[in-house]
Formats: sequence, structure tokens, C-alpha cells
Amino acid sequence: MPNDNPFQDPLRFERQAPECAVVIFGANGDLTKRKLIPALYRLAYDRRLAAGFAVVGTSRTPMTDDQFREKMREAVEKFSEDTPLDEDVWGAFARGLYYIAGDVKDPGMYQTLAAKLEQVEGERHTGGNVLFYLSTQPSQYAIIARGIGAGGMGKGGGWRRLVVEKPFGHDMASARELSNQLHEVFDESDVYRIDHYLGKETVQNILAFRFGNGIFEPLWNRRYVDHVQITGAESIGVEGRGAYYQEVGALDDMIQNHLLQVMATVAMEPSASFRATSVRDERSKLLRSIRPWSPDEVLKNTVPGQYGPARIGGEDVPGFRQEPGVDPAAQTDTYAGLTLYVDTWRWAGVPFYIRTGKRLPKRVTEIAIQFKSAPLHLFNRDADADGLNLLILRIQPEEGISLRFLSKRPGSGMTLRPVSMDFNYGSSFGERSPSAYETLLLDAIIGDPTLYTRQDMVEASWAVVEPIQNVWRNHKFDFPNYASGSWGPAASDEMLARNGHAWRRP
Amino acid sequence: MPNDNPFQDPLRFERQAPECAVVIFGANGDLTKRKLIPALYRLAYDRRLAAGFAVVGTSRTPMTDDQFREKMREAVEKFSEDTPLDEDVWGAFARGLYYIAGDVKDPGMYQTLAAKLEQVEGERHTGGNVLFYLSTQPSQYAIIARGIGAGGMGKGGGWRRLVVEKPFGHDMASARELSNQLHEVFDESDVYRIDHYLGKETVQNILAFRFGNGIFEPLWNRRYVDHVQITGAESIGVEGRGAYYQEVGALDDMIQNHLLQVMATVAMEPSASFRATSVRDERSKLLRSIRPWSPDEVLKNTVPGQYGPARIGGEDVPGFRQEPGVDPAAQTDTYAGLTLYVDTWRWAGVPFYIRTGKRLPKRVTEIAIQFKSAPLHLFNRDADADGLNLLILRIQPEEGISLRFLSKRPGSGMTLRPVSMDFNYGSSFGERSPSAYETLLLDAIIGDPTLYTRQDMVEASWAVVEPIQNVWRNHKFDFPNYASGSWGPAASDEMLARNGHAWRRP
Repeated sequence: MPNDNPFQDPLRFERQAPECAVVIFGANGDLTKRKLIPALYRLAYDRRLAAGFAVVGTSRTPMTDDQFREKMREAVEKFSEDTPLDEDVWGAFARGLYYIAGDVKDPGMYQTLAAKLEQVEGERHTGGNVLFYLSTQPSQYAIIARGIGAGGMGKGGGWRRLVVEKPFGHDMASARELSNQLHEVFDESDVYRIDHYLGKETVQNILAFRFGNGIFEPLWNRRYVDHVQITGAESIGVEGRGAYYQEVGALDDMIQNHLLQVMATVAMEPSASFRATSVRDERSKLLRSIRPWSPDEVLKNTVPGQYGPARIGGEDVPGFRQEPGVDPAAQTDTYAGLTLYVDTWRWAGVPFYIRTGKRLPKRVTEIAIQFKSAPLHLFNRDADADGLNLLILRIQPEEGISLRFLSKRPGSGMTLRPVSMDFNYGSSFGERSPSAYETLLLDAIIGDPTLYTRQDMVEASWAVVEPIQNVWRNHKFDFPNYASGSWGPAASDEMLARNGHAWRRP
Repeated sequence: MPNDNPFQDPLRFERQAPECAVVIFGANGDLTKRKLIPALYRLAYDRRLAAGFAVVGTSRTPMTDDQFREKMREAVEKFSEDTPLDEDVWGAFARGLYYIAGDVKDPGMYQTLAAKLEQVEGERHTGGNVLFYLSTQPSQYAIIARGIGAGGMGKGGGWRRLVVEKPFGHDMASARELSNQLHEVFDESDVYRIDHYLGKETVQNILAFRFGNGIFEPLWNRRYVDHVQITGAESIGVEGRGAYYQEVGALDDMIQNHLLQVMATVAMEPSASFRATSVRDERSKLLRSIRPWSPDEVLKNTVPGQYGPARIGGEDVPGFRQEPGVDPAAQTDTYAGLTLYVDTWRWAGVPFYIRTGKRLPKRVTEIAIQFKSAPLHLFNRDADADGLNLLILRIQPEEGISLRFLSKRPGSGMTLRPVSMDFNYGSSFGERSPSAYETLLLDAIIGDPTLYTRQDMVEASWAVVEPIQNVWRNHKFDFPNYASGSWGPAASDEMLARNGHAWRRP
């Protein structure tokens, strides 16, 4: 099977999507306007979609097809930052946009949808292929899946796939329950759990960097790596979503999905091939190798935080408990710092530090691989020469790679000083990078689940997160414990200091 | 002995030179004007010299001290590119400049010199320390050394050291004879054979790069390195030095000393400490591990070249045989390309390709470490993705380090393309880099021979070069075999092609 490995298929880069209809539940919502329709329009603009392509939007708001088209046009004009609205492309794309209003709890709605899909299939020749995209409240996922099944749309002339957005449950039990409910209608292989972090070019590039080159993998293990720091920092607060956020917290919102998936990408073993199954098997294996903490260990190896009020740049910034809709005594974590260990031959004893937080000094996602120093210190070093050698994989907002190492300071004698070698993703490639949603939507339409999260991966993540969650929820922390605009609670710094390490200031 | 390792001595960077007199033979020559005096003046400008410092110049040209001072002032004005002529610094420096005229073959000259040194010691308080610098015809080295001895200057109140410029003999026998002659007056430990390549910041930085960091040395061996290319290319021809050059050739002029020393720096084992003895022992050991070629092997593993006439940029450029003073049937090599192997556990089977030449397309000195590819090709690669991963240590004219590796090309699918990470020495350090002569003169005055070539290293180099020289001299090559402005003879490309390799085009 020469094309058995999709990453080696020379046509994969220019692969064409099959005809299909994309049904969006929650079509009047923010995600549809900001991400989904701009991504689909860009795919159309790049001629990546089949001629037989359609979108059927649905939500409770009554709208005609034309009103929906007008609304989506406004969305593209507003949110397609780097793609011009080309009238020809838009015209053809817009003719494939349809809409029906309905309540997902109303069985009649699925009859309407089934009829609409039949109409669309006739008009647009979508080949019976349907991608259902759930951009709704998570509490509606099971209801909608059942409705699709009851409406006879779970199977059909072509393929049927279901894309669901996080959260995939709020703990192990609810995650399992959700999977079971979806499986009533869809096979696991047709369930596409989207994690937009995995669609980012720079996250995908981690695999290319590690396994496409011969010189990094030999260093990528406990013999040479001292520790790893994964940071997903936000500078904003809860931005009006306080009521929702107080039920979730940083640990569930960022670490359970995004940052553990990033960690799996950084730390996984090379897969024997790059077929979706192999890659997902390795990611899953890595997640299952993370040592779960006992309740006692949780208190030592994790630090929750919650931001308090501060004065930043002459402006008073409220603390989390002062945000609209938030309980003034909320115990929600807006910061989470974890020490994790991976119990494999490759990583035994190497700490993986993960942190995320709101109202940190800047928005930055990065992975820092801290290598061990040279075994002998033969030369003088400047005082700031510690903490080298360092490889930084920058995910956002800057996308690139930096390698810090020691170099001879010019002059007589041999004194070393840290310097940097830099690779900038944007300036190195003339081409535009597709957005994560373009990549992932096209993958789902083509049927490539490599970058999607599988049930066993979701459960492996909960196996790491749930014990922490349980301790945090039953413990009264003295919140707030970090000021808005600071790098998080002092306890998090102390956690690393006990190992002789320190958080980077990206 | 806490300061036993000079590289770990925190004061080494700011170490002060002891008082001394520098005696320059050939003080009316080009090297004195272009390099030695500007370097010494810069050291004075940087307050690196002791108050008790003096220079005694000597040559056959009659001059007074004041005339010599005036001449040296002109030299500094003309050749000290990045150092302003500060009247205060220059005044103090110039008062320490002295001159005597004399023929090095005249025994009376050494009496005059001895008397002058006594005068200078009284006036300048140079502490009896004398550094003799031979910037003359190599044929005069032995005569001068003997003269110094006969004049009673080989020993004295302070230390006595002798700096000699290359060539150190023209084959093994003459190199040994020269050492023996110098040893009649100076101990080997007081003989400083200067190789200005080793004084270059970027060559010194190879040691810092390799042994100051923990992440490069694990890759620095036959398991990961495919081959190494060392290039010392010049764009100029013989520039009026044809008569001299035709007796020397590229192999002796560049490879026997500079490029083999560079190779030793790249390939040597880490030394246990960075004392001069340890470092020089390792360099020497490496040179002695280079496999010498039998006459048959020479013809297969080496390629001499000589440039022919060409039209470059609308201008007729003469071939070597058309240069003034050159025999129209000269068999001189103006290009030399070698394949060498280092018979150690670290390097067994890894080809080291070395080339140098005149009238090549550009002036560039660089070391390219070609690493092996990833063991599995899991991804598509652009056609130009071969020849990666590559580390380039750029010695001149650009000074820096580049790492080439494969990165994901933006877009759907996984196609790899080569990209570069760059470190630029100049822009990374705000400081000025001292010239090689500043570094090396200060080292000699301080008594640190780390960067100087020892007798055993010279002989080890000749053991590599002499068998090649012997074959080349007894073989009639069909010269010219490369056009001015090309990258050398086709046979050199074929030599690499037989191993599946190709010369880089820097």
C-alpha cells in the first residue's frame, strides 16, 4: 500500500475535499461567525472544497436562507482578516448556504433538517456526505446526537461524521457518559473531537521538527533534558464570561485538553508511520504514562491560583471575585500550575511543568525544553549563563523556534555568554499559514482524524486532571493569591524552586 | 590549585600583561605595519599593556627612533580600522618605540640590540622580559635565533620568548631542522609558533560552542555526523607574489597549517581542563589520528588544481601561469582538495573534506557539519530537502553559526522544507572583537601558548601533508584545470561524488 501513510502521499498537500454538506448546530453563535464560516470561506477561496459543497446552519433564531447568507457575509467581512471577500467566490459559496430554525429539543426539528438535507443534496450534489458540527452548549451534545439518529440522519448514502467542541465532559464519568451517548448514533471513528491547539501550524510543526530531522531526537530524553515548561498564558480576564468560567476553571478549561495535548505532542514516542491511528496511539500512550497524583501529592505538585484586583497601567483592574456574575467567595482556579512526570524510559525523572492562567502579564503559548548543562564547566560563564541550553518552541503569538546556547564573549580569554539562534515561522515561509479551523475542518471533511482527540485520549487526560480537581474542590484556598498582571501565585514559583528550577518569564 | 585552569580564572578576561619589551625583526615590513603595531597600539588603547612596555624594531633600513615612531604612527592611522588615534594613548605608546638598523647576518647587530635592550630596560622598566618576534624571511629564523643566543639575549633577568610566523619548514625534515635550530637557544616551551587562524574569535568559539554547551557534543560523532567540509576559499589570485607562491602552493600555504588546525579544533576530543598543555595535547592527538595516504591513495583522495585564465565580469583575468614571475609551465597547486579520515572511535568512517584555492568565486572560510538524516522518512520532503541537517560555522567574512533543518511547510498536510536558524556573532555581541593578532600577542606576552602551535603539532601536520606533496611533485598534472572564478577542478567534485557527497556552494 504505497499511499498507506497519508503524510507521504504526495497529493496530500493538494488533496481535494469530497463533496459534502456541513450542518452547523449553533449557527447563530460566536464560533460560527468568527471561526467556522471564515474558515470554510477561505477553503472555498483556495479552491480546496468540492463543487458539491453546502452548509446548513441551524439555531433557534428564525431566519431565511438569504438572511443567513447576509449574516455570514457580514461575518466574513468582519472576521476573515487576511482573506479578501471575492464576489465570485463568495457568490458561489453563498449559494451553498442554507438555514433552518428550530429547537434542538424538538423532535420535529430533525424532520425539518432531514428534509432540508435532502433538498440540499438534490440542489448541491453533496453525495450524501454530512459533517455535523456541534457548536452549542455541551449539555445539548447528547440531545442533538440522539435527534440526528432519530431523524434517520446518523446513516445515509455517504459518510456521516460528528464534530464536537470541548469540553468533553467535566470529569471522567461525564466524559465516558458523553462518549456512550454519541456512540448510540456515531461510531467512535466518526466522532471528531476538535482541539484547535492541535490544528495550529506550530503545534503540527513540533512533529516535523522532532521526527523530520536527525539531530533533535537524540537529545530528546532524560539523558539530556533537565525539565520541560509548557506555558499557556492569557493577559485577559474572564471578559464577561464570569458566570460560565466560575464553574470550569483554568485546569479544566486549558490543561485537560489543550496543554496536555501539546505535552503529548512534545513528549510522545515516534510513531512507526504517520497514519492517524499510529499518531493517535502514541499521543494516547503518552497521556496514559503521566503519573496520576495521590491526594497528598496533589497538594505538593500542583498550585491553583485566582487573580485579585490590581492597578495596571494607571487603571484599576477587578479581581476575579469582582467580575460580573461571579460569586464573591468563588473558589474557582483562574491559574493552574502543575508538576507532572512521565513514567517511561525516555522521560523518567524529568519534570514537566505546565501552567496556564488569566490576567498574566502577556498572552503567550510556548514550550521550553531546558537541556542539561555541559557535564564539565571548563570555561568561565557570565552570571546570567545559567538556565542554558534552552530550546523554545513558540506557539503564539510569535511563531518560531529559538535555541539558546553559550558562546564565547569576544575578547581575550574565554568567558561564555548566552546567545540565541532564531527561526521565525512567518518570515521563513512566504506562504500564509492556514488557521487551525481551516486545517481541522478540511481534515474532518477528508476524513483524516490525526489531529482530533480520541475517546481514550480524553479519558487519559481526565485520569491526570480528575485527582487534582477532586483535591482542589474539597480544599479551601486563600484566594485571591496573585495580583492581576503578575506571573501567578508565589506558591507556584516555590513548587519549582524545590527542584532547583524557576519559571521562565517569556 | 584553584586557578590552575586559566580558562576558569575569573581575572583571565581582564588579565594584565606583565612589563616587557617586544623586539620585532622585520620592523620595516608589511606585517609590522598592517598587523603587529596596530594590534599593540590597540592593546595599549584598551589599557591591556603594562606601563613598562616597549617595542624595539629592527631591519636593514636606517632610521632613528623618531623616524620609526613617525612611520608607525602612519601605519596605525592607515591600518587601525576601528581604533581612533588618541593623542594621549599614542604619545605614551610612541615613547616606548625604539629602533635599530642592522643586518641579521652581522654578529655586531646583536651587540647593538643587546645594548639597546639594556637602555630600554632602564628607561621603560621592562623587567628584563623580552618577546622576540620574527617577521622576516623564514630562511633567517635560524640565523636570528643563533644571533640572539650569541648576543647573550636568549636568557636574562626576566623571561625570553620567541614568536615565529609560518611556514614552519617546507616538509617534515626541514620542520624538524628548524625546531632543532630554535631549540639551541630557546626551550620548546618558549617558542610560540603563530597561526593567526587560531586567534580568530570564531575559531576560538568552536571550543566554546562544543564544550560550553551540553547539546552539541552528543551529536558530534560518527553516529550522527555524515561528513564534514572545511573550506578556505580566496577570490584573489597571487597578487604579485607569484614568484614566491609558485614554490609553496595551496597545500603548504593553507592546509598544512591553518585548515588542519581548524580541523583539529572541530574534531578534537574534549580536553580534561583548558590549560594550554591539555588543549594542545588534544589538538596534537587529533592531527596524529589523521590517516596518512599511501601514494596510490593520494591520487584517489586528493585533487590539486591550478587556475587558468577567464573572463570575469567583462574583464580578462590571467591564469596562474600568466602571472608575473611565474614559470609558464609551473606545476604549482593553487587549489587543493583533500579527503581525510580520522582514525578514532569518534570519527571512524566519517570523511573530512578540506579544500582551499585561489581565484574561487568568493572569499569564505567555513566549516560545515553535515549530519545524517532522520532514520525514517515519515514525511514528504521538498526536492531541495536533501543535505540536511547542516550546521555551518562561519569563520570569515561573516562570523556566525547557522543550523539548517526541516520544518513543516504551512498548509494542509505534512510536507517538509529546509529552514535556517541563525546566530550572527557581530550583531549578538555589542562588543568589538579583537583581531587575531591582538589576541595572540597578548597571549604570548602573558605566556599562554594555548592558541600557538607546538612542535609535535607541526610534525603531525607534515605527516599528513608530506605524502601528498611527494606524489603531487612527482606527477605531471594537466594544469590549468579550473577557470578563475569557478569552484575548482571537476576532479574535486568527482572525488566527493564517489562517496555520494557534493561540495557546498557557500
